[in-house]
Amino acid sequence: MKQIEGGITAAKGFQAAGVEAAVKYQNRKDMALIYSEVSCAAAGTFTTNVVKAAPVIWDKKIVEESPFAQAVVVNSGIANACTGKQGMDCCQAEAKCAGEALGIPAHSVLVASTGVIGMQIPLDRITKGIEKLAAAKAEGLEAGLDAAKAIMTTDTVPKQIAVEVELGGRTVTIGGMCKGSGMIHPNMCTMLGFLTTDAAISKEMLRKALRADVADSFNMISVDGDTSTNDTLLILANGLAGNVEITAEGEDFERFCEALHFVTVYLARKMAGDGEGATALFETKVMGAASKEDARTLAKSVICSSLTKAAIFGHDANWGRILCALGYSGAQFDPENVDLYFQSESGKIHIYGNGTACDYSEEEATKILSGPEVTVLVDMHMGEAEATAWGCDLSYDYVKINADYRS
Amino acid sequence: MKQIEGGITAAKGFQAAGVEAAVKYQNRKDMALIYSEVSCAAAGTFTTNVVKAAPVIWDKKIVEESPFAQAVVVNSGIANACTGKQGMDCCQAEAKCAGEALGIPAHSVLVASTGVIGMQIPLDRITKGIEKLAAAKAEGLEAGLDAAKAIMTTDTVPKQIAVEVELGGRTVTIGGMCKGSGMIHPNMCTMLGFLTTDAAISKEMLRKALRADVADSFNMISVDGDTSTNDTLLILANGLAGNVEITAEGEDFERFCEALHFVTVYLARKMAGDGEGATALFETKVMGAASKEDARTLAKSVICSSLTKAAIFGHDANWGRILCALGYSGAQFDPENVDLYFQSESGKIHIYGNGTACDYSEEEATKILSGPEVTVLVDMHMGEAEATAWGCDLSYDYVKINADYRS
Repeated sequence: MKQIEGGITAAKGFQAAGVEAAVKYQNRKDMALIYSEVSCAAAGTFTTNVVKAAPVIWDKKIVEESPFAQAVVVNSGIANACTGKQGMDCCQAEAKCAGEALGIPAHSVLVASTGVIGMQIPLDRITKGIEKLAAAKAEGLEAGLDAAKAIMTTDTVPKQIAVEVELGGRTVTIGGMCKGSGMIHPNMCTMLGFLTTDAAISKEMLRKALRADVADSFNMISVDGDTSTNDTLLILANGLAGNVEITAEGEDFERFCEALHFVTVYLARKMAGDGEGATALFETKVMGAASKEDARTLAKSVICSSLTKAAIFGHDANWGRILCALGYSGAQFDPENVDLYFQSESGKIHIYGNGTACDYSEEEATKILSGPEVTVLVDMHMGEAEATAWGCDLSYDYVKINADYRS
Repeated sequence: MKQIEGGITAAKGFQAAGVEAAVKYQNRKDMALIYSEVSCAAAGTFTTNVVKAAPVIWDKKIVEESPFAQAVVVNSGIANACTGKQGMDCCQAEAKCAGEALGIPAHSVLVASTGVIGMQIPLDRITKGIEKLAAAKAEGLEAGLDAAKAIMTTDTVPKQIAVEVELGGRTVTIGGMCKGSGMIHPNMCTMLGFLTTDAAISKEMLRKALRADVADSFNMISVDGDTSTNDTLLILANGLAGNVEITAEGEDFERFCEALHFVTVYLARKMAGDGEGATALFETKVMGAASKEDARTLAKSVICSSLTKAAIFGHDANWGRILCALGYSGAQFDPENVDLYFQSESGKIHIYGNGTACDYSEEEATKILSGPEVTVLVDMHMGEAEATAWGCDLSYDYVKINADYRS
């Protein structure tokens, strides 16, 4: 497996576009298209929020009931959530319009929206946008990057990646893009994520791969603990790589899952590190937990702690807050038997062990905590289970962005 | 029942003091004493955090095993949490020292600490502090206020209240004080709270009253979602009011519980409204829920949402975030059947109903959201259960305070 340039257009037969449609934002790209030259197996995971945006309801139906999918239309600026019947009608109109413009059935068009909740999408702008997208769609790096830019809201950078992996002598590519960066919390982490691959894989196995993957990738990140109404992760597989179709578990499936996980963890980390107002990626690795579930719970509790996040922002080795967050996570353990370490590119120090603070240098700790990626290592000494969670620090800018997001 | 002046010294036979002991803070009161002239029935509720501070472990033992208690010694600045054996030894030394200074058994002395986790308490300063407290202890309003000031950390105001209630022809007084204002989250909300009463009530009934009470008072507040290692709520009842001792449920017990609830809700609201960096109290009342548990879950989910808290700080009627927070709370409901209202001293408006936004005035909404106490009313239209939760907005100052709390 190797990482290559590009994102959603890296895999064979995938085209993309990003255009200005002025859905809400002005003078920037705000609509994206992903299009496959041939129909695809599709799978998705969606928000667990009881309040589901209209596009989530639309896409769930498509990936569950439709035999294939071939395009995804995305807009940023307005989430199309809490919009009642009008919101559902909008999804249908988008799919119909895109189907006509692309010459494919309406029920093979997936839709996604991100932005303000409660506002209706202006249908005339979105249909004009779809026509522009259909005209602009193209292969290649630039088109993929345009799409990655168009789906951004408060993100500061586009997020994409692609990898190649050999399956039975054929080169298979997996690419992806995603956007954050507020309302980001496990289950499904709040985000839009789109993955494309030219692998030949059955819909059933694609779904299996995606479901297993998110538990340790996107569902392990949090920016602010708010699980959005719009979380959507979609994957389209068009089979153009020509590998023998993956229809069961085995070596090919494992290699595909491994490459998929590389892509999803890369995107999840990028999303966490670009959380609203973030100045650092904040990673927590829990080792030696009694169970996988405990390891995940403990790791997530630390990266979700507002106090810990604020301390990371302040480069303050206030490790008591980490122990506190482990303690209220719900997992059982003996605090006397936990080891805590801080780690970054600047080094690694032992902070807490045997029930009390270690004799560490505050100066060294501050240096480590000033890195762009700060890791807390926690050894529970209870078993073999491990998990990693990703978040970011809590800064003034998080408050600034969210105190006045709508205007 | 009527509210009267004062706090922990309002009830008969209670004395208090607050002194400068320089445990960590300099040039401010940082140690407090509550002392009853006679021994008391005592009850307490404590943090559910697996990581329990030494004073929590000490107090749990006293209220569960000791027949009575007579004094509470509190320090601010250092939490005595994650301090191992040395921390437990410190509690014992404090109790011994206070017992000697006050002429009471060491096992009738409760202790509490709040502040930085992981630092050891300098024993020489704390014992000198206890001697000063014992010498300074006095009846009356001033002594009570001194104590309420001494327990503050990042609180901006001392928090106390007292009420009188007639029980069987006798006037019974309940007073209390508490401190926040970070690491504040349900179960047990992160706080120190101390209640005193001259009611005659058995230890068993006192415990029953306190346990039932916190579910709808202190456990319904949150500042930042972090459940502290030190949460402690203690109540001492010395019986000096001369009422017929409450030993079972009945009218007297109900009236006592009602007065207790008035005191605890008052203190809980004060604590939430004085959360770190807060500019407003943020209240959420859920009505028409399917069950009491659902009502509590829904109300807490809203006041804990970082995005909603930031919107309240920005006086921005971004109600989609509220619906989103209800949706990920874990409670089941139909989003099409929920009504949302904003309310403050400036008025009340209907924001969301029938699955979409109501036709409200943004100007009026902003005015309502600019009040010092902002309430979100949620009607689930599913049943009769109600619950109220209290939090605060999320401001720049929260980040400022917590990015550099230790220094």
